[in-house]
Amino acid sequence: MSDNHSYTTNIEWTRNRKGALSSPGLPTMEVATPPNFPGGHPGIWSPEHLFVAAAEVCLMTTFLAIAEKSKLDFLAYRSSATGTLGKLDRGMFVEKIVIRPNVVISDENQREKAITVLEKAKKHCLISKSMVTEVTMEPEVVVR
Amino acid sequence: MSDNHSYTTNIEWTRNRKGALSSPGLPTMEVATPPNFPGGHPGIWSPEHLFVAAAEVCLMTTFLAIAEKSKLDFLAYRSSATGTLGKLDRGMFVEKIVIRPNVVISDENQREKAITVLEKAKKHCLISKSMVTEVTMEPEVVVR
Repeated sequence: MSDNHSYTTNIEWTRNRKGALSSPGLPTMEVATPPNFPGGHPGIWSPEHLFVAAAEVCLMTTFLAIAEKSKLDFLAYRSSATGTLGKLDRGMFVEKIVIRPNVVISDENQREKAITVLEKAKKHCLISKSMVTEVTMEPEVVVR
Repeated sequence: MSDNHSYTTNIEWTRNRKGALSSPGLPTMEVATPPNFPGGHPGIWSPEHLFVAAAEVCLMTTFLAIAEKSKLDFLAYRSSATGTLGKLDRGMFVEKIVIRPNVVISDENQREKAITVLEKAKKHCLISKSMVTEVTMEPEVVVR
């Protein structure tokens, strides 16, 4: 793989269980332990949220790329995703992520193609392929 | 696992290869395909950056928790992390992440304890345990 397929991020601890997350050229964001762990903080992006988001955003960007190639005509795309922790012998991990994409099309005849593009996106998303986590998809295609 | 160990995120496609990432109660951020992929955008958080960040932030938050329990006296913590893509038969994935934590202590006698706390944090980080990716650590402890 070429050098341009590497991604660097930086953290600086600020105080309590919080830090500033940055990356060259990208906006800095606050991160913290999530509130459901001891010492955690509400209202701040946590490692768990970032992990779920990585899979969810990857499904969207992969969908957008395949939709363009497949000439799928769609009006809107949105999704929600939920990650759930589980326990193994070696401790807690993110056991499951469910992603629920919702695609709006204007023509009922495009429904099957939309589902196919979503399924291909699910299969080719490089982030879920990098996870031990079981990633599942519950797609919805709406005609407007 | 109880219900409060679940994490939900949302995406709304905006235009091109970009979207708005949100989560109940958390600040909304722009996300996109990274610039080294066709149609990608510079200066925006990508799935690859979020994935690397999840492992890096998890190491910090786990370090902070174990440092408190172990009564490790430290002045500062920062890190950088680099994720690199690789290729398998079934396509691209995040093959490696290297995390380089830098811990500042005021007392040389705390050096060994600092290293032990870092190693425990590496071992217990629930995000790297959820990855197929090979996550390695290159720790540095500085006395100031």
